[in-house]
Amino acid sequence: MNKVAVILLSGGLDSTTCAAIADKAQYELHGITINYGQKHNYELEASREVAKHLKFKSHAIIDIDLASFGGSSLVSDDIEIPKNRDIENVHDIPSTYVPARNTVFLSIALAKAETIKAFDIFIGVNAIDYSGYPDCRPEFISKFEDMMNVATKDAVQHIGKYTIHTPLIELTKAEIIKKGLDLGVDYNLTSSCYSPREKGKPCSQCDACKLRLKGFSDIGVEDPLNYN
Amino acid sequence: MNKVAVILLSGGLDSTTCAAIADKAQYELHGITINYGQKHNYELEASREVAKHLKFKSHAIIDIDLASFGGSSLVSDDIEIPKNRDIENVHDIPSTYVPARNTVFLSIALAKAETIKAFDIFIGVNAIDYSGYPDCRPEFISKFEDMMNVATKDAVQHIGKYTIHTPLIELTKAEIIKKGLDLGVDYNLTSSCYSPREKGKPCSQCDACKLRLKGFSDIGVEDPLNYN
Repeated sequence: MNKVAVILLSGGLDSTTCAAIADKAQYELHGITINYGQKHNYELEASREVAKHLKFKSHAIIDIDLASFGGSSLVSDDIEIPKNRDIENVHDIPSTYVPARNTVFLSIALAKAETIKAFDIFIGVNAIDYSGYPDCRPEFISKFEDMMNVATKDAVQHIGKYTIHTPLIELTKAEIIKKGLDLGVDYNLTSSCYSPREKGKPCSQCDACKLRLKGFSDIGVEDPLNYN
Repeated sequence: MNKVAVILLSGGLDSTTCAAIADKAQYELHGITINYGQKHNYELEASREVAKHLKFKSHAIIDIDLASFGGSSLVSDDIEIPKNRDIENVHDIPSTYVPARNTVFLSIALAKAETIKAFDIFIGVNAIDYSGYPDCRPEFISKFEDMMNVATKDAVQHIGKYTIHTPLIELTKAEIIKKGLDLGVDYNLTSSCYSPREKGKPCSQCDACKLRLKGFSDIGVEDPLNYN
């Protein structure tokens, strides 16, 4: 029987590496990308390229307007995306946190999974080189897994048990990139920047760019993206 | 301080009664109605009327296309909505089950709640006179509550603890209607039917109509909706 998985793909470095890992493990991949009103919607384009590159069985971009709720610099025009933060020494949860984002994303992935009889969901969350978002931590993933196994028809009827796979959760950004390069990931297709300039060119100053650049630098490899 | 709550409002009998209970308990109500591609989208209109009638502080209709996933007679054109089932004696989970629907709905309610600093969410789920959906049961609600209190910034920073209120969960349909009538609910504004005819006129044959009609009949009150 085919192993079938739903993967949450943002088009960024982490989710793309996660997809490559799932691909290597021979899952048939069904990608879900969420258009939630993020200012950096260039990543939607990147997600399409990655899905094509990794030969996803299906890929859907799903709209859910979290921007209408506001409350995050990633979606609200009146909150500026922080730049040039000292990411290694500041550990508060920054304004880029989007309320309940991964809860919403995993819920949508679960809805997709149940309709296609997939019991495996991949998400590229990371709790090491990250921005302190609560919904990237193992505690969250574990509680979500408990919940989804009482929430769904196929789980309560013991047709299958849902698992959330988080292969990156305990890795540093450098380790993630190293793993991705070993798997042949083309990071030039990905987009991490929260505040890209024309044609998706990364800003190099937001937390996402800084974490990414530090990751490449730590393993002595040049990021293929053009930051100039 | 104002008590602030987010309420999931479908425009049906249960969620409207639930809203009236929250209103009576003096919550400032922020309604979320989900347009998920349900064939019976007449209920969106009903939700607007109910929100107006109960003087909600805000009411948003949020689009999320679960119909594109399929897998339920409520959203898929190729699956017929079951009619004239023997609802008192058949206890399977019917084709009207929508994969992960309440998981998705509560996630969106949580996103709204965190942005407006509301720690109370109301949902009119019912596990007595219902269709056996797993995501209407107390087990599900309890696990979702556990999850949301590790998922969110305000919870992990101990600014507040999220609670899901399910005042109808252990009531019969007759008890729900009695409670609503005591609170002055105008059930003529509500829409329960899965398969309404022109102008939202209920079919009287789907599970939702049958449960509703039985509830009114059990307390000897006539349903104000016109079924003819």
